[in-house]
Parts: sequence; C-alpha cells; structure tokens
Amino acid sequence: MSKNMEELVSHAKHRGFIFQGSEIYGGLANTWDYGPLGVELKNNVKRAWWQKFVQETPLNVGLDASILMNTKTWEASGHLGNFNDPMVDCKQCKSRHRADKLIEDKLEEEGKEMVVDGLPFEEMEKMIEEHDIKCPVCGEHDFTGVRQFNLMFKTHQGVTETSGNEIYLRPETAQGIFTNFKNVQRSMRKKLPFGIAQVGKSFRNEITPGNFTFRTREFEQMELEFFVKPGEELEWYDHWKETSHNWLLNLGLNPDNLRLREHDSDELSHYSNATTDIEFKFPFGWGELWGIASRTDFDLSRHAEHSGEDFQYIDQENNDRYIPYVIEPSLGADRVTLAFLSDAYQEEELEDGSSRTVMRFHPAIAPYKAAIFPLSKKIGDGAKEVFAQLAKHFNVDYDDAGSIGKRYRRHDEIGTPFCITYDFDSQEDEQVTVRDRDTMEQTRMPISELRSFIESKMEY
Amino acid sequence: MSKNMEELVSHAKHRGFIFQGSEIYGGLANTWDYGPLGVELKNNVKRAWWQKFVQETPLNVGLDASILMNTKTWEASGHLGNFNDPMVDCKQCKSRHRADKLIEDKLEEEGKEMVVDGLPFEEMEKMIEEHDIKCPVCGEHDFTGVRQFNLMFKTHQGVTETSGNEIYLRPETAQGIFTNFKNVQRSMRKKLPFGIAQVGKSFRNEITPGNFTFRTREFEQMELEFFVKPGEELEWYDHWKETSHNWLLNLGLNPDNLRLREHDSDELSHYSNATTDIEFKFPFGWGELWGIASRTDFDLSRHAEHSGEDFQYIDQENNDRYIPYVIEPSLGADRVTLAFLSDAYQEEELEDGSSRTVMRFHPAIAPYKAAIFPLSKKIGDGAKEVFAQLAKHFNVDYDDAGSIGKRYRRHDEIGTPFCITYDFDSQEDEQVTVRDRDTMEQTRMPISELRSFIESKMEY
Repeated sequence: MSKNMEELVSHAKHRGFIFQGSEIYGGLANTWDYGPLGVELKNNVKRAWWQKFVQETPLNVGLDASILMNTKTWEASGHLGNFNDPMVDCKQCKSRHRADKLIEDKLEEEGKEMVVDGLPFEEMEKMIEEHDIKCPVCGEHDFTGVRQFNLMFKTHQGVTETSGNEIYLRPETAQGIFTNFKNVQRSMRKKLPFGIAQVGKSFRNEITPGNFTFRTREFEQMELEFFVKPGEELEWYDHWKETSHNWLLNLGLNPDNLRLREHDSDELSHYSNATTDIEFKFPFGWGELWGIASRTDFDLSRHAEHSGEDFQYIDQENNDRYIPYVIEPSLGADRVTLAFLSDAYQEEELEDGSSRTVMRFHPAIAPYKAAIFPLSKKIGDGAKEVFAQLAKHFNVDYDDAGSIGKRYRRHDEIGTPFCITYDFDSQEDEQVTVRDRDTMEQTRMPISELRSFIESKMEY
Repeated sequence: MSKNMEELVSHAKHRGFIFQGSEIYGGLANTWDYGPLGVELKNNVKRAWWQKFVQETPLNVGLDASILMNTKTWEASGHLGNFNDPMVDCKQCKSRHRADKLIEDKLEEEGKEMVVDGLPFEEMEKMIEEHDIKCPVCGEHDFTGVRQFNLMFKTHQGVTETSGNEIYLRPETAQGIFTNFKNVQRSMRKKLPFGIAQVGKSFRNEITPGNFTFRTREFEQMELEFFVKPGEELEWYDHWKETSHNWLLNLGLNPDNLRLREHDSDELSHYSNATTDIEFKFPFGWGELWGIASRTDFDLSRHAEHSGEDFQYIDQENNDRYIPYVIEPSLGADRVTLAFLSDAYQEEELEDGSSRTVMRFHPAIAPYKAAIFPLSKKIGDGAKEVFAQLAKHFNVDYDDAGSIGKRYRRHDEIGTPFCITYDFDSQEDEQVTVRDRDTMEQTRMPISELRSFIESKMEY
C-alpha cells in the first residue's frame, strides 16, 4: 500500500531524508535540506545517471559550468525577454498568484480543459471577470491586472548596485553546455554525434512553488545536450527517449506510475519538431520528471548570432559544414529523487497479521547498501572489521542499539537492502547471517563473499 | 620540472580541464567552467573526500542544505553585520580595491609586514596618505574614503523588490549544518562526538577575485562540523588536523608543497581556541587550502540565542547537558582541485634526451583510470568489449586515433595512469598490454584481471 504526501513528508523528516530549510527560523518559502539519508539517496541517483549517461557510453562527456554567467547568455537564449509568468495580486489579502493557473483551475472545476498560458493578458483579465474567479486565499474577487514576471533571480556582481553589473542566477544548466560547445568539441576532439552532460543547481523565482520538493525555487538538473547531424535527429530522439525511460524502470520505478506524453504539434515550441514528457504519478497527481526535446539548431544558432562565434561543425567525412541539431533529455534531480522516495515508501501487511513500513529502494540508490549488527556489543570488534571492509566500497551502517528485530524494522524504514548479523559463531567460522529486506529471508554467508554479493545486487 | 601559472591555465583549457566561463561573450569576471576532464577530476576529489570523511567513518554523516536560507541565519552567524571588506575607489580610473591589501602590499615593498585588516577606517585612510599609495591600475594617488562592503550576494525572492523579501546566497556551507544540528542528531540518533559533512556551492562578492580558480566569487566547499563534549575539543582538533593533512598526502600531493600554519593567539578569532591553515605552494605562491578551527560553542550558541531553539545536548551517560563544542575542518573544493592539477603537471626529461608532458595524478583522482587502445580499428569490437567491462566500474576512455605512441603522449598529458593496448593476439589469448604512465613499463595481463589491478591502484 502506498502512502499519502503528508505521511511521506513526515517520514522523510523523522528518518533523516529531507528537512524543512531554515526550519529553526520558521523556514524559507519551500526550501528543503537533504538530511544524512537524503543526501546519500540523491547522490546515488546523480551517480547512477552519470554512470549511464556519461561513464558507460563513449558518445558523451561531462561538464560543470558556472551558475553565474555573462548576461548576454540570457539575451541570446531568450530568457531575459521571454522567461515570464503572468501574475496577479489579490488586492484584499495581498497574496500573489499565477493568472494562467487560477483560470485553468476554475475552468477545470467547470469541466473544461484548456491551456491558458500564452494567451494575451487582456484575454486572461476578461476570463477572470467572466468566470468570477475568487482568490484561493481569502475568497474575494478583487485582483490587479495581469503583469509579466521574469523568473530569473537577479543579483549584482561587484560593489555598486547599478544596471551595469546586474547578473542572474542561471534558470537552467543547458546554456552552459551550448556556450561551451566549441570548447568541448575541440579539446576532446569529438565527432558528431556526441553529447555533453551536466548536473547542477538552477534557480527560478517561481510565484507558487509547492508539492514538497517537486517545485522549488532552487533545484538541481541533470541535462544532456546531444548533438547530431541535421536529418538524424528523430532517430536519436527515439534513442534517448527509450534510454531515459529504461533508466527509470531499471532503477525500479513501478511502470504503472510512469507514462510518456508526446506533445501535440500545437503544444510544441516553435523550434522543436518533437517533445515527450516522462511523467510520474506522485501522491499529489501526475507530474513531469523528464522532458526529451528535439530542439533543431535553435540554441546554437541563437548563440552564434549573439556572440559572433562560428558554431558550424566541419564534417570532414562528408565534406560538409552545418550547425548541429540537438536532442535534450532534461531531468530534475530533486523530482526524480522524490519519485524514488514516493515509490519506495510502502506499508506492508505481513503473514502473521502485523504490518511493517518498508522503503523498497533498488540497492543501487538505497542510502545504505547494508547494515552491520553485532549480536552483542561484546563482539563489536569483529563486526567493526566487517564494517571497515565494506565501507571502502559502498555506504554501510553500523548499528548496535536494541534487539535484532528492532534493528531490522529500523532499517526496513530507511530502505537498507541487507542486514548483516555478526554473531558468536562468526569469529570462528567467518560467516554472517544476511537478511534480505524484501523477502525477509536469512542466509548464512562467508564474510569474504559479502562485497561481491552486494555489488552484484547493485547492478541495474 | 613544474610549470608556471600561464602554462597551467593554457594546458587546462586545451586539454578540456577548465575553460573561461561565458567565454564566447567575453567572459564574466573570473568565472570558470570545468570541462569534461575537469569535472571528472573535481568529482573524484569530492568523492575521495566524502569517502574518507563520511563513508569510511561511523562518526560522521552527510547533509545537503539549500543555498538560499532565511535571512535570520545571517543575522545570527554575524555575516550580515560583519562579513565586510574595506574598499576604496580610484577617482581617476574608477577601479576598485581592497584598502587593506593596497596598504599591505605597499608596506611589504617598504620591507614591513603587517596585518591591516581590522584597523579602523580612519587609520587606513591615514596610511594611504602617509605612504602615498598609488592606484595599481592607473598609477594616480586619488582615492575615495574607505567604505564597508558586505561580501554576500543579495537577491529578492518573490515578485517585488522590497527589503522584506531580500535574501542572500550563502557565503559558506557551515551555517546549513549548524541550523540542522538538532534535526540530524535526532533523526540519526547520534551521540557525541559526531560530525556532519557537506559539499556545496557558496558565493562571495569578492572585490578582487583572481589567481585562476583559487579565488572566485562562486566556489565549492567541503566542510565538516564535528561536535564534541567541551573539554575534549583540542584532542579532536589534533585528530582532524592530522586526518586532513594525511588525506592530501595519501592522494599524492608533494609534501614539499604543503605546510601547516598554526595561528598565533593574536590572529585567532575571539571565539576560537586553536586554528591551523594547511597551505599549498601554488605557482603564484603559498595559499590556504584547508582551515581547521576549534570554534568552541560560538555558532550553536548564536543560533540558540537568535532562534530560541534549545541547542543543548543531553549527555545521558554523564547525566549532563551542554551546548557542544565544534571543530571545523573547511576545505575549498576548487582550490584543492587546482592544487592537484598544479602538482601533477610536469615536464619530464626522458633518457633519450626528449621530453614529455605528464600529469601525475593519483589513480584515485585521475579523470580516466585507463584508456583502451585497439591496435587496429579492425579489432575494435574486442577492444570495445574491454571498454564496456571496465566502464561499469570506473571512468575509462576509448581511443583509436593515431599511432600507439601518439595515444600514449595524449594520455600522459591528461594523466591517465594506464594505457591498455588490445592487439591481434588479444582475441586468442585474452591478454592485453598495460603501459604504466609513470614508469612507462609495459606488462602483459589477462583481461579478467584488469578491473582488480586498476582498483587496487586506486586505493589510498
């Protein structure tokens, strides 16, 4: 049985996965801090992505560009001009809302479905009047006009706050890849097709963040920009769509909680000739995890135009030159971590009528791969040796508090796949008892085989 | 023979380690982007730190707190009030300088050494006059008065830019640890002594960043806050100082380029009872890598006072309660990566009178652990299988361009410890030739032994 959102947030807090940001000071609008288990989980997710999208494929290489970039980047990318949300304020209670969302919610109530984002502001204002839309906070119908709101965080570099030294926190990692296209291609002597991958923080001044770590102003992305010869883009689009989907399935996400949503032609950005969203069924409903978009040469062409740099690729094999097309699989690290957390978190009825809470993480992403239990503190030295041996290779816990049964339950609740009990015989026979989280079966195993046994379970 | 800074910066760019940030737009004041090899190197450094400071010790756990925090955090920590540099502007050329550095440089020229930071501003103004200090840019002596400059980047969360929604980019990761002390201690049921470790970006609006990636406005930290019972702090201070120093040595830094500088009592912060800087000899001179500070209960007490939260630890064993003391080993991820880069980069005279460029990274941090060379493209399939086998476990390159000699040179230049040649016999005897970067010796080895051979070399 899956759990609801409130239970998940509470469990995540009390078991050290995710705390409210700045909690002792009353928090800060939907910021979240990853606790000791959360940081291990999220690091494992990032590492698993890097492994499949960089390390194991000779096609791709990595990059780690700055969060702070020259403002011309955002002129070229269009973020300065177009990265806006339409907003209204309630004059009564001063709360602020996204106009398009207010209208869409009301229409949905009335049984209509419609994408409002993109309509002219006068149109939105008319709809707010016609449908007598009320403020969700105070219930009044008394709004300001609809205004533009740019979602980039602005700051100043250097000492004085003049327009000349305004800079922005990046709203996406992608542009750091595009602007470095030539640097990477040249220094790594890459031939098309090839990709550049990046993991890093981005910032969007969302008007209404929410749903736990699903939509936050500070978030982390895992983006790949894969450059191809024009004409070959749809074949590679299919390839990366499938690879992305499989990555989620192989790491254990429930297929019933995943769906692929191909954008209709009227939903596509003007430069895109194909886009799919991989969506996950969160406790609050379906939400986007991964966008896979075929973006033609839009990004590189814009940067070529704005920078004067030549972004053409010289195709020596075909004696040709062109600006490459790009496929962009873009995944939210916090969102996919939340998906793994939500999917893993289960209440299970046992045969004897009792129940247990268990997090069924794939061993590749579980915070601890194993926990070492000395049956008694008297034989702690031997158990600590097992800990030290395994801790060189992956993250394990050492737990000597309470009965073995209590320790099993504790580690079920944080998703540790294997509990290893070191008992009085272990000193003699160099064997330990390994208990499986999911089957709850216990097996006697030589200490020397533990590492390879656990590593084989971590493969995906 | 070591190389100078200019050569290092050029090599780092052309070999894909570090590019100028926003280069196609003329850059952005001392920002840098890690290229495909740079991100692997830096990730390896961060992973090696996490392994020794979190994974392998049952004493410590990790954390990943938000960059954006409630402003009360910076009131409590003192950053809003005191995190300032004294600055002056040159009225002639409008360049901006740190007043204390200008004066110190001039005094040094005159053969005097003195710490000017901390003196009253009138004192600094008088010294600028008395010593007839000139602008380093235009040579004129025509400065504004000395002013305070707070080093935190300010931005606004939410739609309007009012003082009510001002927030700051964190200037250090440490405060995210202190504010979560109780959350971590409770959820992980930790007893003293224990530590909380964090890796993440911080931002400081430095007046004069410089020296490549040594001092940048956006930078990454690896911080440990280790909490102890008051009275035991100096013993743990020694422990972490030694552990930190050994970590650098074990990863291959040249001991001649490292020194420990213990702060004199008049250099110590008022709350610290012991501080050491581990310094590294960069091509531009000695610079701080790691600060290890015994900070008493200063940080937790400040947060207790400002938040009203009780930060006392209940010591059940001794039937006592107290605010823990803290030892803080704080390391710059970019700085230590630059140290590894600089230390590894060598020009070597060979016996035959020729020379080669080689980066002698420890295998644990080398971007590629090995490179697979098919002797001929005809036997690429077999070589690719070796690549696929090893790429599951660590980062390797596949290189089939040019002569084997050229490929050796190329991988010496990026520090790949082992080059593996797959030749026509390999298909029959399942063996390959492994060439060692440092000794340049070649050994024939079964393919099945490659993984464990390389992993054993990666230990440190």
